[in-house]
Formats: sequence, C-alpha cells, structure tokens
Amino acid sequence: MNNFEFHNPTKLIFGKGTISNLDKLIAPEKKILLTYGGGSIKKNGVYDQVKKALKNHNVIEFGGIEPNPKYETLLKAVELVKKENIDFLLPVGGGSVIDGTKFIAAAVKLDSDPWNILNGKAQIKAALPIGAILTLPATGTEMNGNSVISKLATKEKYGFSSKYVYPVFSILDPETCFSLPDIQIANGIVDAFVHVMEQYLTYPVNSPLQDRMAESILITLTEVGPKALKNKTDYNEMANFMWCATMALNGAISRGVAEDWTTHIIGHELTALHEIDHAQTLAVVLPGVMSVMRENKKEKILQYGQRVWGVNSSNANTAIDETIAKTEQFFESMGIPTKLNKYSVGQDTIDTIVKRFTDRKSVFGEKGDVNPDAVRKILEIRK
Amino acid sequence: MNNFEFHNPTKLIFGKGTISNLDKLIAPEKKILLTYGGGSIKKNGVYDQVKKALKNHNVIEFGGIEPNPKYETLLKAVELVKKENIDFLLPVGGGSVIDGTKFIAAAVKLDSDPWNILNGKAQIKAALPIGAILTLPATGTEMNGNSVISKLATKEKYGFSSKYVYPVFSILDPETCFSLPDIQIANGIVDAFVHVMEQYLTYPVNSPLQDRMAESILITLTEVGPKALKNKTDYNEMANFMWCATMALNGAISRGVAEDWTTHIIGHELTALHEIDHAQTLAVVLPGVMSVMRENKKEKILQYGQRVWGVNSSNANTAIDETIAKTEQFFESMGIPTKLNKYSVGQDTIDTIVKRFTDRKSVFGEKGDVNPDAVRKILEIRK
Repeated sequence: MNNFEFHNPTKLIFGKGTISNLDKLIAPEKKILLTYGGGSIKKNGVYDQVKKALKNHNVIEFGGIEPNPKYETLLKAVELVKKENIDFLLPVGGGSVIDGTKFIAAAVKLDSDPWNILNGKAQIKAALPIGAILTLPATGTEMNGNSVISKLATKEKYGFSSKYVYPVFSILDPETCFSLPDIQIANGIVDAFVHVMEQYLTYPVNSPLQDRMAESILITLTEVGPKALKNKTDYNEMANFMWCATMALNGAISRGVAEDWTTHIIGHELTALHEIDHAQTLAVVLPGVMSVMRENKKEKILQYGQRVWGVNSSNANTAIDETIAKTEQFFESMGIPTKLNKYSVGQDTIDTIVKRFTDRKSVFGEKGDVNPDAVRKILEIRK
Repeated sequence: MNNFEFHNPTKLIFGKGTISNLDKLIAPEKKILLTYGGGSIKKNGVYDQVKKALKNHNVIEFGGIEPNPKYETLLKAVELVKKENIDFLLPVGGGSVIDGTKFIAAAVKLDSDPWNILNGKAQIKAALPIGAILTLPATGTEMNGNSVISKLATKEKYGFSSKYVYPVFSILDPETCFSLPDIQIANGIVDAFVHVMEQYLTYPVNSPLQDRMAESILITLTEVGPKALKNKTDYNEMANFMWCATMALNGAISRGVAEDWTTHIIGHELTALHEIDHAQTLAVVLPGVMSVMRENKKEKILQYGQRVWGVNSSNANTAIDETIAKTEQFFESMGIPTKLNKYSVGQDTIDTIVKRFTDRKSVFGEKGDVNPDAVRKILEIRK
C-alpha cells in the first residue's frame, strides 16, 4: 500500500425532508448567493423548500449554469458576488451547478486571471464557503474538492482540485431525484461506476480492503441502476444510488492505491468538442482503455471481471474480452450507447483529439505510458 | 435506509516515516502535552521519532496511562494541563492512550465534575485539540469521537462521544506496530471485527452498499489477521490491518443503518469487574448475542454467514449455528478464548452483571429488547 493522506471535512446530511435544516446550517448574518441551473428546481418543489427554509436569510439568485458549466457564464456570477458582497454560496442542483459554484468560490478570492485556476498556473489559497443541495447523484462533487469547467470560446474542458472548495455541508434528499429524466439517472449510474473504475483498475498494490470497497460500489450500482430507472420514485433505490455516487468519489476507496483518470481525460475532449454528456463519453472510452491498456491492467481486469461479473475463463485474454463486453453491455442496458458513431463522432474528431494531446505533450495513465498513440488506438476501436 | 449525518473532520496521515510530519502539523507556538502508556514507545523508537520531529516545540510529558484508561489517573493529567497551560494534546500509543487523552481534552474545558462526562450528565461544549499517533490498530479511536474510560474505585467502565474530541489529525505508521506482542495484534483484529459486527448484525434496511462495505472489512480481517500474526514485520499486512481497523469505526459503514452495541455494553462489565482485555470480552459475548438474539438478527446472520464464511445450509437454524461456530473458531484461531471459564469468570460475576443492568433499568439492542433476562441468557451460554 502506498502512503496517503485522507481528510474530508464535508458534513453530509442525508435523507427525507433534510432541506428544512438549511436555516440552522447557515449563520443568519450570511449573505447568500443561491446558484442553480436550467430551472428544474422551480418545477420539482426544491426551490420552494429552499426559500421556505431560508425565509429569514438574505438570499439573492444566479440561475442558468449550464450542463458542463461554462467559464463565460461563471465569470458573470463572480462579478455579481463581488458587487453584492456575497459571503456564502448555495448551489442547488447536480454536478454542473456545484462544480460551477466551486469555481466561483475560488475565482472570487483570486488575485490573478481566473483562467489560471483551470490551466494550473494559479495556486488557490482561499475560497468562499459553499453549502450544496444535490439533486442529481453522479459526480461525487458534493463530498470532494474537485470541479470541471468548460470554456465555450475555445471548446476546452479542464478540472481543478482544491481543499478550499470542499462543501462545508451537503444536503442529499433522495426525494429530490424523483423527477429526473431517465437519461440523467442512467448518466449518473455510469458516471459513478466509472469514477470507481478510475481508482481501481490499475495494478495491484496489496490493498484488499480498498479493492473490496470499490467492488462493493460497482456491484451495488449494477443492482441499483436498473431498479432506479424502472421505478424513479422508489425512495430506497434512489437513496442507495445517491450513497453509491457519493462514496465513489469522496476519497475513501482510493487511499494508498494507484489511480488512472485516462477515461475522464479523453472523455472531456469529446464533451468539449461535441457537447456529448460526460457519462456518455466515459461509457464510450472506458472499454477502449480496458482493451488497449490490457497488459498494464491485466491483474485488476481479471479480478474485476471475476468479482463483479462472475467471469471465470481460464484464458486471460478471453476473460478480459468477456469482462469488457459485460461492462459495455451494462452501459448499453442503461440506455447509454458505447460507440462513437452513435454520437456522430468521426475520424476528424479522433485526429483533433490526438493532435491536442500531442501539442500539449500529454502523457497519462497509472504508469505514465498513455501517450497520443495510445489515445488514437483507444478511440479507433470505439468508432 | 434511515436518514443520517456523516461528518468526520479528522485528517489521517498514513504510511512509512510519517511521524516526521509532526512539526508541520502542530503550530510552533503550541504548548504540547505528550501522553503515553506503559513506556513501550521508549523501546520501539517511536518516542525518539516524536521528540526529533518536535525538537523546536515546547513539549511536556504525561506517561503511565493504563490499558482501560483509569479515571483516577486521567484526573492527574487534567491538573497538569491546567497548571502548565497546555493547549495541544498529543497521545502516542493505542486506543487506551488516545481514549484517555480525549477524556482529558474534554474534562479540562468542563465547568462541572468530570465524572459527569461519563454518566452523561454533562454536555461537552469544547475540548482541547488532539493530534494522535496510533501504534496499535484496534479501536478506531484515531478517526472518531468516541472514548471509553474505567473508574478503579467503583469498577465501572463507561463511554462517551463528542464531536469535539475527534483528533485534528492522526498519524498511522504501520512500522510502529512491528514490535507489538501477539496478544495485542490478536486483540486488535478481534476488536475491529466486532466493531463492524455491531454496526452490521441487526435487521435489513435495504442498504446494500453499507452491508457490502462491512463485509469487505470482515473478510479482509479474516485474511489479514493470521498473516499479521505470523509475520509481524510484514509492512503490507500491518498496513491492511491498520486501514481495516480505522474504516471499521470511522462512521462510513454505519450511515443509515441500525446499530446494536450489546456486545460492547456487556463486555465492558467483564472488563470493569475482572480487567479482562476488551477484545477478549467481545470474543466471549458476541457468539452469545448471536445465539440468543437469533430471531431479531436472523436475516443478517444468514447473510453474514453466507458472504463471509460461505455457510450455505438451507435450514436457517443450522446455518445460524454454523455461522456462530465459524465466528468462534476465527477468534480462537487468533489465540483468543471465547468461553468465560477460560478467564476464570463464574456464576457470581454473571449474577453481578445482571444485577447491575437490573439496577440501572438498562435495555439495549437494535430493537430495545435486550433486557437483563436476555443478558443472563447470553452470559449463561458462554460459561
């Protein structure tokens, strides 16, 4: 096992009716910016619950944060926060709203160009406090310090991480998810699933507990996903889905083990260039990474296949192929296509992505050997 | 799944050589009280590592905190802290040293009689900050707000919990455990195992992820325990043991599920009356609880037997008996006897314990039906 640190200061409040706790969670003197997305919270009752809980607080609003939150939009919120002397941020929505609000929180406190947060040139040293209300289980952002932001002008998508943008608290009420469209539930299941895979499917370091905890989330997602899709108002299934998505990316399963975020890094390019849903890009790319990087990941793919899918072929290559097929079938069964042609992505996009990584001199992967050539192979077999 | 809160603010620093980080973790102006137990840290090099890391800090010492830390001893430390104006507590040792130091931290800030912390009459509203160095994996105290204290004068043992006594940080270096005697490793494995069981072996609430995570720790402990005992300087086995013990009681597996601390509550009485090691009392009592409360716990005992021990009898009662036998055999295989007569405990002690619970009007258990009669049955079958 590798040395590690583990520190997750977010306070989670989970369950039915918990939004009503808001007034006790935010000091009465705070001036709050409530941020949200396209307005679904005004249709499903969540907005009303928030406003009722905060009826004695000073709240102003900033709506319209897009899926794959846009840098250009968020800069407007940064201006508003400064103008209004906001001192508490309250994102209400899914991963995009919370990620976007993390960027706002850091950008407000930054002395230099906010783009430096995303190109890695700025060191974040402070952020406004954030309390989140999650209405879409998927990204795990409700209990971590990560955020991913897209720039419209240049079609780029980058992430950043900082200990300063962990939410102070996050409220997760599974009932807020009852009105989600099928595609968002399917995306959320796949997103959480691939988050686990990126922290698990590397090489063995003698970490049996981390492995089993990762497999616990994977198996539970394969059970819960179809049930949550079938009956979207089943409280327990939605609660289990929410808890899986949080545990998938709050640090618990990745302590002391190798990680490989190749699938995300390549997937971000597909979203940046074509606005394909994040989870859909992951469903496309992951099987390619498993296939092309099968030698690096051999032991863990075999373990994953055996423990999660019951694959027992004695021939390693056959077992790996069967395991990849099972993974693809699971994504497809959730209604998420796993090939590029289903998203009208062709050779020109593959060439563009490979050129981007070549220009950036990017190499990634748990052994640092996913170079632009490997990226080409990964994408070519997903056409 | 039940509603829950989850907030664990402790920062964990895990791995080889991590004690050297101490000087960066404690502000230079702090006046530190280093607390420890019987002095093993002076033989195994841990004390020297701590003193070296803190060579520029102001450190005074309080040694001699006993196993099952004694109220009477801890009051002396409370006096010392007040006299010396200590503002940071640094326990170096196992669960007893850290638990004892949590009591010191809370008692120093309390206006009333410190005993009120243990009889539940005082509400803890503050505590001195604690940074812990764990040298014995077992109790999970390094990443929770729990503490258990014994009073010599009256042979009583009580626990308390407070959000104020979570360690600010805990350092876990598996190499510090290389010199542990066999009995302490065996005790630690059993203690961590039973911690998981108390949060798992109740009734189903549709919590598949919590269940699988609990089972992950149980299975890993059954693998790691014999290996760690066989080769006490195997870094990876000790690291896996340490990580299991922390994850067993840091809140992650118990969110939204029922708990039943019956085994601990009864076990504490055996320790209070006979100074039997805490883990040994758990190894004695748990099989009795499983047997007597088999109807309450039926579904979960069957699930545990099947998933952890591979028990597959179609007759439920047979399967439960087999599962209890497997659990006992595991404890015995670690060198921990599971019957009262092996600890020279006879009928008089059973009568005393039942009388204590009767006098206190105690009922416990996940359904509130473990009354003094049930306690008698549980202990009678462990004679």
